Amino acid sequence: MTDSPIRKAQPGFRWERVDLARYKEEGSAPFRDITRQVLFHEHDLPCEWRYFEIAPGGYSTLERHRHAHAVMILRGRGRCLVGDQVHAVAAHDLVRVPPLAWHQFRADADSPLGFLCLVDKDRDRPQLPDAQGLAALRRTPQVAAFIRTGDESSG
Amino acid sequence: MTDSPIRKAQPGFRWERVDLARYKEEGSAPFRDITRQVLFHEHDLPCEWRYFEIAPGGYSTLERHRHAHAVMILRGRGRCLVGDQVHAVAAHDLVRVPPLAWHQFRADADSPLGFLCLVDKDRDRPQLPDAQGLAALRRTPQVAAFIRTGDESSG
Repeated sequence: MTDSPIRKAQPGFRWERVDLARYKEEGSAPFRDITRQVLFHEHDLPCEWRYFEIAPGGYSTLERHRHAHAVMILRGRGRCLVGDQVHAVAAHDLVRVPPLAWHQFRADADSPLGFLCLVDKDRDRPQLPDAQGLAALRRTPQVAAFIRTGDESSG
Repeated sequence: MTDSPIRKAQPGFRWERVDLARYKEEGSAPFRDITRQVLFHEHDLPCEWRYFEIAPGGYSTLERHRHAHAVMILRGRGRCLVGDQVHAVAAHDLVRVPPLAWHQFRADADSPLGFLCLVDKDRDRPQLPDAQGLAALRRTPQVAAFIRTGDESSG
């Protein structure tokens, strides 16, 4: 029945009655090899609960916004930028992305990175870094080596 | 450093800088063998994200409230009552508990049941069933056999 309160997990980090969506519209922002599934978007809950999965070597968009993220890694390994620090992350680690912190998630080359991400349903749109913002980020060598903006040659 | 945005997962479904709390005050409501960890309670997010773990054979309180729950099973196996139906649940299954639905989670006898639970930070207190409410629930044989109210002999 379609109104069951249970949606069973399926193989491959899919769920019954949950669509596999694009992460974002192609061309709207730089990203690579990432999918999005909205697990809960309810009229009686103020937050939206999503699952993102980045394929090996892929990355989410380098961005910031006024709304916060609460993240739990569900699968695999990778690294994430939060503010001006890069952190290694693995299954069940918790990540808080504060308002206006630049952030980007990257899967390791040999592992997917799947994570749960909680946000306010009522939220502002992400901002991308302009040239000045990128220059500021790149002043930290570890950050310069980490970030992906879609202008890199592959690898 | 204590203000790191990352809290690493620890063995046994614990996390850095997350307290292991009582589920509820002893004697406030019937429950057995269950712990609570608040993973995210942030000033800039309207929801609270918790992890509950029920030991083998244990159960959460049979209750209802106006606020909704969004649940993902993270570990183990068990069953849950939502409304007037009992469902088997296992890792990564999603459960929606609608407003005013009676609900109770039970771990299997040979497995813990750990689950993530999302709620509005601003929420009403749980209601326990009175004698009339219990009688109504027990009209469904499957529900009568499932629910635990603390009055059972052990087993």
